[in-house]
Amino acid sequence: MALIVHKYGGTSMGSTERIRNVAKRVAKWARAGHQMVVVPSAMSGETNRLLGLAKELTPQKTENAYYRELDMLAATGEQASSALLAIALQAEGIESVSYAGWQVAVKTNSAFTKARIESIDDQRVRADLAAGKVVVITGFQGVDEDFNITTLGRGGSDTSAVAVAAALKAEECLIYTDVDGVYTTDPRVEPEARRLTTVSFEEMLEMASLGSKVLQIRSVEFAGKYKVKLRVLSSFTPWDIDLQEEATSGTLITFEEDEKMEQAVVSGIAFNRDEAKISLVNVPDRPGIAYQILGAVAEANIEVDMIIQNMSKDGHTDFSFTVNRNEYAKAVDLLKSKVLPALGAKDVVGDTKICKVSIVGIGMRSHVGVAAKMFRCLSEEGINIQMISTSEIKTSVVIDEKYMELAVRALHKVFDLDQVKA
Amino acid sequence: MALIVHKYGGTSMGSTERIRNVAKRVAKWARAGHQMVVVPSAMSGETNRLLGLAKELTPQKTENAYYRELDMLAATGEQASSALLAIALQAEGIESVSYAGWQVAVKTNSAFTKARIESIDDQRVRADLAAGKVVVITGFQGVDEDFNITTLGRGGSDTSAVAVAAALKAEECLIYTDVDGVYTTDPRVEPEARRLTTVSFEEMLEMASLGSKVLQIRSVEFAGKYKVKLRVLSSFTPWDIDLQEEATSGTLITFEEDEKMEQAVVSGIAFNRDEAKISLVNVPDRPGIAYQILGAVAEANIEVDMIIQNMSKDGHTDFSFTVNRNEYAKAVDLLKSKVLPALGAKDVVGDTKICKVSIVGIGMRSHVGVAAKMFRCLSEEGINIQMISTSEIKTSVVIDEKYMELAVRALHKVFDLDQVKA
Repeated sequence: MALIVHKYGGTSMGSTERIRNVAKRVAKWARAGHQMVVVPSAMSGETNRLLGLAKELTPQKTENAYYRELDMLAATGEQASSALLAIALQAEGIESVSYAGWQVAVKTNSAFTKARIESIDDQRVRADLAAGKVVVITGFQGVDEDFNITTLGRGGSDTSAVAVAAALKAEECLIYTDVDGVYTTDPRVEPEARRLTTVSFEEMLEMASLGSKVLQIRSVEFAGKYKVKLRVLSSFTPWDIDLQEEATSGTLITFEEDEKMEQAVVSGIAFNRDEAKISLVNVPDRPGIAYQILGAVAEANIEVDMIIQNMSKDGHTDFSFTVNRNEYAKAVDLLKSKVLPALGAKDVVGDTKICKVSIVGIGMRSHVGVAAKMFRCLSEEGINIQMISTSEIKTSVVIDEKYMELAVRALHKVFDLDQVKA
Repeated sequence: MALIVHKYGGTSMGSTERIRNVAKRVAKWARAGHQMVVVPSAMSGETNRLLGLAKELTPQKTENAYYRELDMLAATGEQASSALLAIALQAEGIESVSYAGWQVAVKTNSAFTKARIESIDDQRVRADLAAGKVVVITGFQGVDEDFNITTLGRGGSDTSAVAVAAALKAEECLIYTDVDGVYTTDPRVEPEARRLTTVSFEEMLEMASLGSKVLQIRSVEFAGKYKVKLRVLSSFTPWDIDLQEEATSGTLITFEEDEKMEQAVVSGIAFNRDEAKISLVNVPDRPGIAYQILGAVAEANIEVDMIIQNMSKDGHTDFSFTVNRNEYAKAVDLLKSKVLPALGAKDVVGDTKICKVSIVGIGMRSHVGVAAKMFRCLSEEGINIQMISTSEIKTSVVIDEKYMELAVRALHKVFDLDQVKA
């Protein structure tokens, strides 16, 4: 008997019929003797419906008071789906209770629409588990110290599930989703993509941060920090398949390298169409300019991904970085109104038609020439590289968005990812 | 400058377009210098949609754990509409913040789906008002001492608004709804029905409790208890009509009899198709039987309306009462399984095809023969009276549901309610 956390995405919760299937699956685990905590997303389409209503009322605003209300609004989606799941579990004869984030409490900072979890109180949940109840906890949301509802940003339910698993010291956190595991790349782009039975935490972290949509990046960080065993698996298997078969399906994210069976140099190709590039042209090259630019951006709560500063020429340099496309307009406005005048820079140039393609693999640590092989491959396909960024286990390039599929397929082939490993 | 509470029903909040109109109306009041608190219902149809999802998952259950989840679910409707209204107000350039019941906090008992407000903390709201913000508070919901979300039952948003007005000692509580005031009876049943410009608190209380759907009964009780000036008015006037004209429209519920301009003997005809009749036949007539029957019913949280005990015959009597139709099956089950055996009564007979029709008027106090006039009128229409109940200012009868319209129209005419008073 173990304490297990299940997380179900919006598609799995997409109708009462599907919610009933989730309840039957969870009931199977509970009847097998496990203490169960379930973290559901909102019913698919619900978050968009709610935010769509807000958009009908006002153009995108940037005031904190507005973001606060968006969180009040969006948080209702998970509260409703959690209550429905508890009801479905009760209909299966399983005692169940649902909690909104503030009731647990899942405490976060006050960064509305992208809050970070600071602590989770496990007392109330533990009491319910001890009483034999299945506990349903809303994903995606928490509460700040002033009792305002906060949300963790898109995909935040994964993070909620992992954070809950960490707080409860759960045996394993199973993320049920509409894919059956982590693939070498997105099968919709490369039909030859293969499912990985295991992937290292570090690779998963890079893949998640590079745009593989299977898991939200912060959930992987959380899992790493608190050593939560994380499994990604399909919610579309029949609910009554053998529990042991289900418990070993999908992709396990491991923490010890020697647990990893497949020792490929490159484990996967990630890509991301959600970014936009911003360049400040002819910036005076003096100490502190990076801080002057990115400090203002960070203060506005805009996350920056890649950062490139070119070589100085005549005491001036070009400074480029990428942000999420949703925050592109906000970032450009901010730079034009506040940063450019103070900096004496010439202009801000942007490009939203870019994509980032990355190769990820723990084997890159011990193999030289992997990045070079990537660049050669792209060059042979005639694809121009606009930005490059590397870490110990990944190499990313920014290219024109229209070459994305071509690049992914070529790289997938060149690194033998279509070949099943022994 | 006064502190004013506005309450908007589901129809007024039914679309983003309508929410925008509500925001413009509230903004008009705020700009005129009033401190504004707004209590909205869920968008029309939303509560039914949510509870419909629950019904798809499970047949009606009676466990407390189930009702708790229904409240978690239903409460999301008002949380979403409140956030949307705050966003719409911000779009109008008005600073605004929304709170769910638990954030204020609106504290209630733990009677899920029909909780009662116990106290409202005004500190947070007062601070916001002092800071010049319009405060939006979810109707219909609160929080119990264990931090479970509770709802006040259908129409509970009226009660929320009045309770908030009482807690804040508001100058007036304006209930914006889809009718333009309180009528002598429902104009859909009697086209000759007239709007009352004022109605006494006591009459309103009887009308509300007797099924006039304009205001929820508990909101009127609350208004009476805390002397909240209450006005029912239309939310369908253009938002930009003159504020003074708007502020004096609709029907004012007054507390002082001499404030009342219209001194009719009967002010209105109320009716109610929501009840069902339950009779226990051949009950041993001994002390304590009423308590034995109704104590069990009350313990199951079922509200009883009319109660009739017939004359004893051979040491036995018949005992009848009415309950809400929704609770009819629950009540009959309870009586059959628990009360009948203990009582040694013969049988439970029920009838759901009944309606209650009532005449209400503060003038009845000083006029004799009003009830007799009612009975004669019904008799002339050939309508059989099944139960009678009276109070100082009303007389109610239970009749076959199919005669309802006939009875209402005949009584409306016989008491001259179609005549405009000087």
